[in-house]
Amino acid sequence: MNKIYVVGIGPGEYEQMTIRAEKVLRDCDVIVGYTVYADLLREHFPEKEFLTTPMRQEEKRCRLAFEQAAAGRTVAMVCSGDAGVYGMSGLMLEIGTEYPQTEVEMVPGVTAAVAGAALLGAPLGHDFAVISLSNLLTPWETIEHRIVAAAKADFVICFYNPSSKKRKDFLKKACELMLQHKPETTICGIAARIAREGERTEICTLQELRERQTDMFTTVFVGNSETRAANGRILTPRGYAVDTDQRGVIV
Amino acid sequence: MNKIYVVGIGPGEYEQMTIRAEKVLRDCDVIVGYTVYADLLREHFPEKEFLTTPMRQEEKRCRLAFEQAAAGRTVAMVCSGDAGVYGMSGLMLEIGTEYPQTEVEMVPGVTAAVAGAALLGAPLGHDFAVISLSNLLTPWETIEHRIVAAAKADFVICFYNPSSKKRKDFLKKACELMLQHKPETTICGIAARIAREGERTEICTLQELRERQTDMFTTVFVGNSETRAANGRILTPRGYAVDTDQRGVIV
Repeated sequence: MNKIYVVGIGPGEYEQMTIRAEKVLRDCDVIVGYTVYADLLREHFPEKEFLTTPMRQEEKRCRLAFEQAAAGRTVAMVCSGDAGVYGMSGLMLEIGTEYPQTEVEMVPGVTAAVAGAALLGAPLGHDFAVISLSNLLTPWETIEHRIVAAAKADFVICFYNPSSKKRKDFLKKACELMLQHKPETTICGIAARIAREGERTEICTLQELRERQTDMFTTVFVGNSETRAANGRILTPRGYAVDTDQRGVIV
Repeated sequence: MNKIYVVGIGPGEYEQMTIRAEKVLRDCDVIVGYTVYADLLREHFPEKEFLTTPMRQEEKRCRLAFEQAAAGRTVAMVCSGDAGVYGMSGLMLEIGTEYPQTEVEMVPGVTAAVAGAALLGAPLGHDFAVISLSNLLTPWETIEHRIVAAAKADFVICFYNPSSKKRKDFLKKACELMLQHKPETTICGIAARIAREGERTEICTLQELRERQTDMFTTVFVGNSETRAANGRILTPRGYAVDTDQRGVIV
């Protein structure tokens, strides 16, 4: 049977890929991906054939993968982070219904929420919501509704795609919504260019976050009511009942 | 400076660890962890010293790590999945304030939400909420509030710790709450013993999920209004505006 692996390569740095992902890339016949991510891999697989399409040509990229598989080649379709979180997995399964002779297997990776959280400390230590601020394919009203729901229910919130050239003020609008339901002093974190050149983190309050400029290569964390700063990191305790005398109950 | 790495080893299978995690484990002086996870690693590092504590001795385990570091040894504290998602990272940072001479670095891993989603297809293709159904350290009222908020805002929902011996009916209670706000036909997925012996997945409706028995080694996914089944997998499309004639707009 023809085979395509949809591979999450992690946040950027080669070593943050799983051992399994590396094996799949080493053993496949051709690697298909977005131009930028393919370039991250090329130096590690100099002998390998790469086929790329630029941004906004996701469907073409998927069909390219299925056509290669139909020609009997084992294909690795690569995505940054994990392919299942705002990635290509869904579209691959959707288009895959037209290619029943091709098996599609997902190889999970470290998504930006998890990688960014690790840089900042432990902001995702308790229940959290992941929201993309891109309104390219989702109405802004739906996004607003989710932001308010997550804020009111005291989820930690992790934002993907917090802003772009066309949506400069989206993070600001999101902060203004959250400020109606959360204190100004809520601890937040910014992780930019995770595991890439220029990696940067910042810890700030929700009030301060409102004034920050971010881009598509940034992941933003907004704490819950228990999130706090400690030694230059942020952490969200797992339990509410922290008893500092009898610590056995903390986790 | 003394150094502790807090390492997410992924869902279970050795190869789902990142290359970086493997390097840290190979280079460290001692591996500290929960007995069960240490046993998963021992065969791969037969020469390495392991120090373990059983469940519910999380604080003791953290202090063991800091004491080893204080003795000048490089320590790897291991957690399954990612250490930042309901894991040990937060407690390590908390206790770490008492050991300012020790640097704590997080090494992210593939968490169960991402690994389970990959097995089921692409349920996390759009905004999602992660909720633990364990009320060991969180009041059940808070958990209920979050379930209802996530259901009403049409998040995909991923449940960790869906039930245990003492909480047999928690998933059922969660389903009954969601059924007040979501259709009975909502597509759900169950991923049990991810990347371990006995791995199993099931796709069912929310009505059917209500009757399922699960355990602590299971991750449960409840779709949003767009989640659907395709070829024995489930997928949540990234965009709302799927135009099957002009596919360029799907992702």
